[in-house]
Amino acid sequence: MKDFRERDKMKIIDINDIRKLIKIVGLEAFFKKLIATLETDFSRWDAFQKSPRHATYYPHGVIELMPCADDRYHAFKYVSGHPGNTAQGKLSIVGIGQLSDAVTGYPLLLSEMTLLTAFRTAATGALAAKYLAKGNTQTLAIIGTGAQAEFQVLGFRTIFPLSTIRYFDIDAAAMAKFSRNMTPYGFELIPCQSIQDTIGNAGIIITATAAKKQQVLFDLQAIAPGTHIHAMGGDCPGKTELDLMLLDAAKVVVEFTPQALIEGEVQQCGESGIYAELWELITQSKPGRENDAEMTVFDSVGFALEDYSTLRLIHELALEHCIGSEVPMLPEVHDPKDLFGVLSSSG
Amino acid sequence: MKDFRERDKMKIIDINDIRKLIKIVGLEAFFKKLIATLETDFSRWDAFQKSPRHATYYPHGVIELMPCADDRYHAFKYVSGHPGNTAQGKLSIVGIGQLSDAVTGYPLLLSEMTLLTAFRTAATGALAAKYLAKGNTQTLAIIGTGAQAEFQVLGFRTIFPLSTIRYFDIDAAAMAKFSRNMTPYGFELIPCQSIQDTIGNAGIIITATAAKKQQVLFDLQAIAPGTHIHAMGGDCPGKTELDLMLLDAAKVVVEFTPQALIEGEVQQCGESGIYAELWELITQSKPGRENDAEMTVFDSVGFALEDYSTLRLIHELALEHCIGSEVPMLPEVHDPKDLFGVLSSSG
Repeated sequence: MKDFRERDKMKIIDINDIRKLIKIVGLEAFFKKLIATLETDFSRWDAFQKSPRHATYYPHGVIELMPCADDRYHAFKYVSGHPGNTAQGKLSIVGIGQLSDAVTGYPLLLSEMTLLTAFRTAATGALAAKYLAKGNTQTLAIIGTGAQAEFQVLGFRTIFPLSTIRYFDIDAAAMAKFSRNMTPYGFELIPCQSIQDTIGNAGIIITATAAKKQQVLFDLQAIAPGTHIHAMGGDCPGKTELDLMLLDAAKVVVEFTPQALIEGEVQQCGESGIYAELWELITQSKPGRENDAEMTVFDSVGFALEDYSTLRLIHELALEHCIGSEVPMLPEVHDPKDLFGVLSSSG
Repeated sequence: MKDFRERDKMKIIDINDIRKLIKIVGLEAFFKKLIATLETDFSRWDAFQKSPRHATYYPHGVIELMPCADDRYHAFKYVSGHPGNTAQGKLSIVGIGQLSDAVTGYPLLLSEMTLLTAFRTAATGALAAKYLAKGNTQTLAIIGTGAQAEFQVLGFRTIFPLSTIRYFDIDAAAMAKFSRNMTPYGFELIPCQSIQDTIGNAGIIITATAAKKQQVLFDLQAIAPGTHIHAMGGDCPGKTELDLMLLDAAKVVVEFTPQALIEGEVQQCGESGIYAELWELITQSKPGRENDAEMTVFDSVGFALEDYSTLRLIHELALEHCIGSEVPMLPEVHDPKDLFGVLSSSG
């Protein structure tokens, strides 16, 4: 049991800390904790102050601030999306997050969120699929095996008895990388020659391409009845991956309607094409999948509440396992009106 | 001359680093550099993507994200305002800022911004006063000697030949603290018994109270012709310090109209009561002070461009003087599509 003073100090969590934490907790256990935390927070939907993210658009990318807060914590993430970075040997998405005490406004945690964003995106997708995909799904197809792919598959595995992974990417090296990284996990890995070939008999399809345009990865006719699609690749204005006819035929679930309408697949069909927000399934205000034949889509664009949950969990785990470093980012004052005195006091 | 790789690494600047930097550069020289940086950036007003800050309101305070970006850098500040903190021995305002490379989206600098916010608020006030106050002003009055007061006076001193400081606070301890901190700087320090007594013959009045309500610190009749007022204490909805009649009689300048209308003194009079935005004075689109009799008000609420300038300067100085620490907040990748590999690679 940590006392209040201990909880009150600010921690910095870097890449090495996350690596260490995942090693201590275990990858699968971490995913399970994260999914459980997300489920708890999504079920408290009305307790949060929510807003669409603040985006700064450039011709070559986007930089976003994603805040979300309740009466206990204020969280936000800085995240950039620069598809051209990959050609320069850099990541296209990097992130940093902060969790603060809403009661005092004092920051509690600054964390890397490049790895954590991949984790939370996969965990949210898996959580939505728990309500939308057939529970006995064994075959998962993933289109696009870039930076997010392994996280997605391993996140979904904590919910479904997956045995077979079919995958495709236009970049052969990305497919080889995916295969190499996934080999230790005991799946039957089936590299495919085309999208058509990939989606064959999969119960879950994850679309995770990075192209910044409107495209149609596959038609309604190409997929089997009862398929669940996690459409995670469409994530900015003008960027979509699915056919409008497919959206019309499916039960489409989003995270937060105002943001999905700006960035998601539902840019194409508008609010009338949305069946529910994820929290409505979790609180059982609306049923998820109702039979084995219906087609479902989780049109995920990422929402700040997911970063809130992730930072809240990381804060707990960091305290529990004594991970992270304490950096004096906030002045310690004897007299709160004597900020100027901080300049001359000895560090 | 630092090469690109060096500039590309991410630095963390904590309270001790700022203390060290101010010692190396010198307080007065730092203020001068900061004012010059602000003046340069305000004169490039149209180069910036600007928006009102994102605020999360609580009954007991506010937490804000303040972003501002041009084609070179993206900057934002997290800042909280919790007036009740003081009674708990905590600061009412704390901040953390981040500067990022707009070309790649990669963060360059994470910095404490509690001290820096006090510096930049004073520097911006001094910059505005350069255009709005009488250049030969020797007497400055400050109402409210809380956490910002010493920074304000020392910032203004880099622009004006100040010799006499008149000051008042309802908290006698805060006045004693101010006096103690200011003694080394060679001013004639005049503690006053009332606001009326304080403002007497001052050419510049700084209002820096923290009360969270509408109040009128002094009437139009109480001040001499030609006075400049830096109204920095009114900084959230419903909180103002000046009389509407005084605003009507004065030339009122703001930082960014959409935000001033939400948070500034001009909440009381609306857009028609605003004479200019600060950048218009700096670019000489509109004249500042035009004669010795006119009354001027800089209705400062703080604007994200000021944090942009501050972070840009701190980044330059940190590189120049090798200050700050490098923390691995971003994954280093061999293959940008192999984010998952970061988990297993050795730190």
